[in-house]
Amino acid sequence: MPRYIYLNGQYVPPSHASIHPEDRGFLFGDAVYEVIGCIHGHLADETGHLDRLERSLSELHMPMPVERETLRFLMREVLRRNNQKNAAIYIQITRGAAKRDFKFPAPDTPQTLMIIPYDFNFDEQAAVHNGVKIKTTNDIRWKHRDIKTVLLLPQSMAKQNAVDNGADDAWMVDPDGFVTEASASNAFIVKDSKIITRPISHDILRGITRTAIEKLCHESNMALEERKFAPQEAYEADEAFNTSATSLIVPVISIDDHQIGNGKRGKIAKFLYDEYRAYAEGLRGKQVHWEPGL
Amino acid sequence: MPRYIYLNGQYVPPSHASIHPEDRGFLFGDAVYEVIGCIHGHLADETGHLDRLERSLSELHMPMPVERETLRFLMREVLRRNNQKNAAIYIQITRGAAKRDFKFPAPDTPQTLMIIPYDFNFDEQAAVHNGVKIKTTNDIRWKHRDIKTVLLLPQSMAKQNAVDNGADDAWMVDPDGFVTEASASNAFIVKDSKIITRPISHDILRGITRTAIEKLCHESNMALEERKFAPQEAYEADEAFNTSATSLIVPVISIDDHQIGNGKRGKIAKFLYDEYRAYAEGLRGKQVHWEPGL
Repeated sequence: MPRYIYLNGQYVPPSHASIHPEDRGFLFGDAVYEVIGCIHGHLADETGHLDRLERSLSELHMPMPVERETLRFLMREVLRRNNQKNAAIYIQITRGAAKRDFKFPAPDTPQTLMIIPYDFNFDEQAAVHNGVKIKTTNDIRWKHRDIKTVLLLPQSMAKQNAVDNGADDAWMVDPDGFVTEASASNAFIVKDSKIITRPISHDILRGITRTAIEKLCHESNMALEERKFAPQEAYEADEAFNTSATSLIVPVISIDDHQIGNGKRGKIAKFLYDEYRAYAEGLRGKQVHWEPGL
Repeated sequence: MPRYIYLNGQYVPPSHASIHPEDRGFLFGDAVYEVIGCIHGHLADETGHLDRLERSLSELHMPMPVERETLRFLMREVLRRNNQKNAAIYIQITRGAAKRDFKFPAPDTPQTLMIIPYDFNFDEQAAVHNGVKIKTTNDIRWKHRDIKTVLLLPQSMAKQNAVDNGADDAWMVDPDGFVTEASASNAFIVKDSKIITRPISHDILRGITRTAIEKLCHESNMALEERKFAPQEAYEADEAFNTSATSLIVPVISIDDHQIGNGKRGKIAKFLYDEYRAYAEGLRGKQVHWEPGL
């Protein structure tokens, strides 16, 4: 934990931070969150994350507890107080604390706003270079996965199940037989230089990094196909990877013990990682074109 | 809130109770709960609730944080300190606080155990006598509703939606077109003296009060049919009711604006309520037989 976190108007050491026993985040999972990477001092895709945060809140009929500009300031201020340049900024907003009742509390109930800036070294992520092993598992989540709530127990169970079976992460599979996403990232496969990922719907979370990848593919003239794919198709892929705000683009080197490609980080995963890093750090001035023969 | 709640080894005033910001109940919904009624000093169906608590924990690969006998003592002690004879005892157990990670934390991570004994007057529940209006809504929950987790946002949204539409509670309807349960209780209908309720599966929580009703029906020679029913069938029912640990047996007087029976508490709901009250308070010595002509 960092020296200070932000909680409800105060910058406090974690040991002094206290969540109310009746906070609706704790009793009902009535809360949304975001994770924003601060990479070498740059808040990666900040606008996209704050847009999605506002959308999640709106879907649950919750207001923003502070103005967007205030939230931007609070993130920077808690980083400054911790003297952090590299962090995974965790933001959680709940409907506040109120006597336990399934009905929403009075609209003037003060919401909980918590910001934990975890130290995070983006330059030394073994998984980005070595890749991860995936185990597929049934997707047992609720039906509004497009809202970034803290109803994360199913994802936690999926990841733990993967780890218990010698893998690093899970790909969840819907009753339709198609992959939805990883426990906390979007799932992609690559076949014949085509990048394939599940289309946006209520079935998956619209990843902010996923959206940036869409854009990068477009700008780099890479073929991106938004369609469902099954584990069987993924086993035969040339490459596979996951995207998220912290691990960015992580190669998948095996799925259910089927080796993907040569079992190492693929060219497209590396290209997209390098491009995304440059974009996220504000260093990407010009458009870069992907050469399939690279 | 009562004067004291129990939290992690201490009896504390609620204002002094503090949940860790990284408690997995708060970050992931990684927690289970129970609500046990204390009616005139009797813990209603205590064994059933503790059995289900142990089952929920076991399904999530969590141990009991204390021995069952200790938990029984803690409930009584917090009631004693509050001088309470009538309470809804809320118990929540989480996997504890640990650095945010979808993987489960180390097994020796101290779990969180919280007991809040809410003041609750079982003798003055308007809904038990006047009934409630129901609005049906899509059941959007995850697939393990048989585990009593705090992933309750969908139920909270369902209830709030019902209230926003002039009803008191929601009946959730699965994609199969059949009613699963109410936001926090099991759903029943009665037709031609037959009591109908959805069979036990992963689709619903096995209510402790529901189980007692099963037993009471059997002992009283009342016909109980465990099968699915659709809203359309419910609209035509002679009676309908919900069962839970706090509201016990609550008559349903309308469903989607269709009046049920004569729009008042029905005979069977009243009979079962009286029987259950006697059973819950340990006053039910002899078997009672239901006379359909009553």
